[in-house]
Amino acid sequence: MKKIESEIIDCLNKKNVKINDLTELVFEIQSKYTPSVTLKECKKAIYSVLENNEACHAILTGLLIDDFINANYQSDTTIINIIKNDNFSYGVDETIALGIVNLYGSIAWTNFGYLDKNKPGIIGIVDRQGKNSNLCTTFLDDILAAIVASSCSIIAHNCG
Amino acid sequence: MKKIESEIIDCLNKKNVKINDLTELVFEIQSKYTPSVTLKECKKAIYSVLENNEACHAILTGLLIDDFINANYQSDTTIINIIKNDNFSYGVDETIALGIVNLYGSIAWTNFGYLDKNKPGIIGIVDRQGKNSNLCTTFLDDILAAIVASSCSIIAHNCG
Amino acid sequence: MKKIESEIIDCLNKKNVKINDLTELVFEIQSKYTPSVTLKECKKAIYSVLENNEACHAILTGLLIDDFINANYQSDTTIINIIKNDNFSYGVDETIALGIVNLYGSIAWTNFGYLDKNKPGIIGIVDRQGKNSNLCTTFLDDILAAIVASSCSIIAHNCG
Amino acid sequence: MKKIESEIIDCLNKKNVKINDLTELVFEIQSKYTPSVTLKECKKAIYSVLENNEACHAILTGLLIDDFINANYQSDTTIINIIKNDNFSYGVDETIALGIVNLYGSIAWTNFGYLDKNKPGIIGIVDRQGKNSNLCTTFLDDILAAIVASSCSIIAHNCG
Repeated sequence: MKKIESEIIDCLNKKNVKINDLTELVFEIQSKYTPSVTLKECKKAIYSVLENNEACHAILTGLLIDDFINANYQSDTTIINIIKNDNFSYGVDETIALGIVNLYGSIAWTNFGYLDKNKPGIIGIVDRQGKNSNLCTTFLDDILAAIVASSCSIIAHNCG
Repeated sequence: MKKIESEIIDCLNKKNVKINDLTELVFEIQSKYTPSVTLKECKKAIYSVLENNEACHAILTGLLIDDFINANYQSDTTIINIIKNDNFSYGVDETIALGIVNLYGSIAWTNFGYLDKNKPGIIGIVDRQGKNSNLCTTFLDDILAAIVASSCSIIAHNCG
Repeated sequence: MKKIESEIIDCLNKKNVKINDLTELVFEIQSKYTPSVTLKECKKAIYSVLENNEACHAILTGLLIDDFINANYQSDTTIINIIKNDNFSYGVDETIALGIVNLYGSIAWTNFGYLDKNKPGIIGIVDRQGKNSNLCTTFLDDILAAIVASSCSIIAHNCG
Repeated sequence: MKKIESEIIDCLNKKNVKINDLTELVFEIQSKYTPSVTLKECKKAIYSVLENNEACHAILTGLLIDDFINANYQSDTTIINIIKNDNFSYGVDETIALGIVNLYGSIAWTNFGYLDKNKPGIIGIVDRQGKNSNLCTTFLDDILAAIVASSCSIIAHNCG
């Protein structure tokens, strides 16, 4: 495993997100379309996203912005307030996620739109945590949705 | 109304799609987030998309491809077969739709992903028509979803 | 080689575009950034794009639209006239190309913008052919630029 | 002028970027295609980008990341090092810029690719400043290129 990949897994663990949470979500979504898919293949698809340099950069940049907001929660600039409140019109979190899903084709980015609206499993947990506490998770939920959406696309293309 | 705009409305009518079908869909989806929105505002948002030159070009190009496939239904080239069957891995219909929703920001393209999966109302009717008959509607359903998703984004930004 | 891949190569040959023309362009552009790159590696990168299903679909759809316009050159609908004239405000050709370059990350799509403006080598030849004759090449030049831009990105990421 | 708009202009001024620098660049690029364009129209196009909420959010988020890196220049995490060095494979700066140019259609995003490669005027000055000093300008140059590319697209569409 590459250094950058294990760094992402550590960062996610510190935020109480386990790779298994993502694996389960990929399985739940994709087994409707690919009934033969296994949990092991879902996990493999997730790791394949985490091995992609460009995806890693987007993930770590999103996590960095959340961490920066959390470290400066008392700051009161316009943009920090907008990010903290994850205002409905703020779309940079979705844009950074788009930088990930675009790499995995049209299935990935339509999946992302669906996950972004429905927020199943760990994505919804993280989203509600941001809304109900002082913890900024504005970028985290979209990054998780992008990883899951991309993994589903990998499975769809591989397993037909 | 511009010539190109009334041409699109004529094309859609010939395919049994009425602007009112789209208006109702926009109202149904967006009134959850903007309870004060009126049917009139939904219709105005749709017309505003149809006034955008770049959106018009994408809409008419998508309709042209469907019409071309329908006129050459007996042809048997690889790409014509792929488009006719709207194979799950065929994503050019979504790509052309992306050319529309991108103009209306992140709310538009996440909405599009949601509509593309759920296919409510006229979008689902058109999609099933393509799947259950010899009529090619591969591009039409995505174009309708893009118009609806963009209109919802216009309302979200205007009405806050 | 997959059937769809050899079909693309045949289509391009019929339009007087040889894979070698594209190979030379990739070499010319990318050797500035990756001086050690060989012509063989450039050719391999191009074939790797042509092996990608989603890229193949976008390429064949673009070529299909050009062919359709050429077969209906006397038609006089608004959209056929716009595509024939490759009006500066017509962007669906770039949108379909975006569906290819997005798969290869940010280097691919910035490269594409550059090639689309500068039109070096075979890209410019094809573009001028469309402008100076009755042959519609509106989609072809952008598709070639997308293949070249994506191949350059593959080399950039592999050779670092 | 909206509060968020004047905040952006202040931020840019502190980084020695004047709206006039951007105006000149838009004029220089776009007057080739629209010979009748005036400096006043170029300035108006730039202000129109700065009035768009979604563009403002992307601009301020990019500037925030640069500022955060500058405030934590001694930090040595993987992602901070990658952003500081603006590694060729780091594309999140281009992704955030894409969130701006997408709103202005295909002319905007092909222009952006061109500007990102050629780096004329103030874009190149800012880029070299980042490369030749300890100041992080990784996001700033792409944000300026996105503002200029979008303004050119506005003029192209308005003036035909």
